[in-house]
Amino acid sequence: MQDAHSLAQAILQRDSRALARGISWLEDGHPDGPELMRELHKASRRARVIGITGSPGSGKSTLTDQWARHLLGQGQRVGILAIDPSSPFSGGALLGDRIRMGRTAPHPNVFIRSMATRGMMGGLSRSTHDAIDLINAAGFDTILVETVGVGQDEVDVVRGVDTCCVVLIPGMGDEIQAIKAGLMEIADVFILNKADQPGMDQVVEALQAMKSLEPEKNPKAWDAPWVKTIAAEGQGLEALDEAVNRHQDWLDLEGHRQKKQAIRLRLRLEGLVAELMMSRVHEKHNAQQWQLIIEQIAKGELTLYEAAERLAKS
Amino acid sequence: MQDAHSLAQAILQRDSRALARGISWLEDGHPDGPELMRELHKASRRARVIGITGSPGSGKSTLTDQWARHLLGQGQRVGILAIDPSSPFSGGALLGDRIRMGRTAPHPNVFIRSMATRGMMGGLSRSTHDAIDLINAAGFDTILVETVGVGQDEVDVVRGVDTCCVVLIPGMGDEIQAIKAGLMEIADVFILNKADQPGMDQVVEALQAMKSLEPEKNPKAWDAPWVKTIAAEGQGLEALDEAVNRHQDWLDLEGHRQKKQAIRLRLRLEGLVAELMMSRVHEKHNAQQWQLIIEQIAKGELTLYEAAERLAKS
Repeated sequence: MQDAHSLAQAILQRDSRALARGISWLEDGHPDGPELMRELHKASRRARVIGITGSPGSGKSTLTDQWARHLLGQGQRVGILAIDPSSPFSGGALLGDRIRMGRTAPHPNVFIRSMATRGMMGGLSRSTHDAIDLINAAGFDTILVETVGVGQDEVDVVRGVDTCCVVLIPGMGDEIQAIKAGLMEIADVFILNKADQPGMDQVVEALQAMKSLEPEKNPKAWDAPWVKTIAAEGQGLEALDEAVNRHQDWLDLEGHRQKKQAIRLRLRLEGLVAELMMSRVHEKHNAQQWQLIIEQIAKGELTLYEAAERLAKS
Repeated sequence: MQDAHSLAQAILQRDSRALARGISWLEDGHPDGPELMRELHKASRRARVIGITGSPGSGKSTLTDQWARHLLGQGQRVGILAIDPSSPFSGGALLGDRIRMGRTAPHPNVFIRSMATRGMMGGLSRSTHDAIDLINAAGFDTILVETVGVGQDEVDVVRGVDTCCVVLIPGMGDEIQAIKAGLMEIADVFILNKADQPGMDQVVEALQAMKSLEPEKNPKAWDAPWVKTIAAEGQGLEALDEAVNRHQDWLDLEGHRQKKQAIRLRLRLEGLVAELMMSRVHEKHNAQQWQLIIEQIAKGELTLYEAAERLAKS
């Protein structure tokens, strides 16, 4: 059994296995997890934290891998967190890891992890941000946070990162239009991937149309640029990286980074408080008692809202 | 101002506007929401509640609309809930409603609603199941719950319904394979949509391969069938509806429906308890106090875990 102090020291000394173990501690609610976070609380945080989201099929995984390769080629140390909606189900996280391992893994300067969803209530967001803190403590230069889907949980995760990239591709239907409208507000950089396929002009037109609908912006506000890529061929990555760096420079002006950090801390804090309170409710009422309450609701002796009031008060 | 009793009566008398208002009450946390639910607690629940999920681009919206038309043609009253990941952002839900309205809406026997995500912590699942209860109280025959994405929140919603349909289409990449593996466990019926496109044989092979990996099943367990559809042309809907009815019949054997209901009630109860407790934490600590705590964390005077402990204890 390793203690929090020695695990923290190993992470600070950039030991990948210690880093993986630390992330597992926080994901699994290990009792020494809070102590580990306290040990690493003052570690320097210098990584660019970049989110990559967009619908399945937009080539996010390939883009993430190629981008990581590009950064590795510049001598950077790169962390990849894959937010995987299949993970709540048995084997999902493992499967995700196995798929990716073949592609980028064995390089010593890369750390790859699939983040599993554990429980309800923003648990994915909480554990992902804990993982970002640990990877930062291990001295990485860039952390790529890739979502597999575009669900609320995943959007919560990427909206908390420093620079959020939204991947769009040509020729997707109505549903994608609706998603795009939603993702507009969290995008710091648009990646127009598969730029060699027909239909990219319409995507650009749709983007311009949506931007024209936005209320007039402060001239100092960030105006999300778009960058064309062909991720499968490694094209456009340098321009993409530059766009991200421009956004990172902008974050350092006039306290934008602090504002983003405050939003992120707020979300994490709310999630943690809810987790702690729920774990206390579960301590006070064992599985059998929950079962009894559920039966009472099912029989119509108690409404859901009445039962919730009672449990919340206890 | 309408009170909970008269609103409940109007919903029982199948007034669509009252139904829409009731759902908004529960979505927005209206103070009389719990009373409304209590009024309707004993209303009969006879609708088939059917979830439809799958990746964007698989044609779920078209399928849902065509299925609804098919059921309307049989004289059924049909409710449609579209779980929309763009909704957390301003305008998303409205946009969703507008898109759909053109397709199926003006029919008097159909009720369509986009469900927005409000707040964290399973709020989407909670408000969707509240909406299902209300639509049930208004005497609908079938409720189709369609997710736009495949995020954790949306999966939580559809895993709670009676019959969960997972839509697959030919020719999707690695990412879809991973999602499929995750969705396997929640599928009661697989819909192989766009069955006229090439590549469906591979989808069937992948399904068979995944099924062969599952542990040996109890012969009385439900073995999820697949049904081929071409939703855009309305083909395969009758077979699909029959497959759903077979699953509904199975649910009524040996208490399976009760078991599903208990899982659903449990999830809803946990979500409600968390919501109530968080709203109390927010009552005790005003926005300024939260701000102060966040600043302390940002300055390194307090760790996130320490702050959460204090707030949860208060």
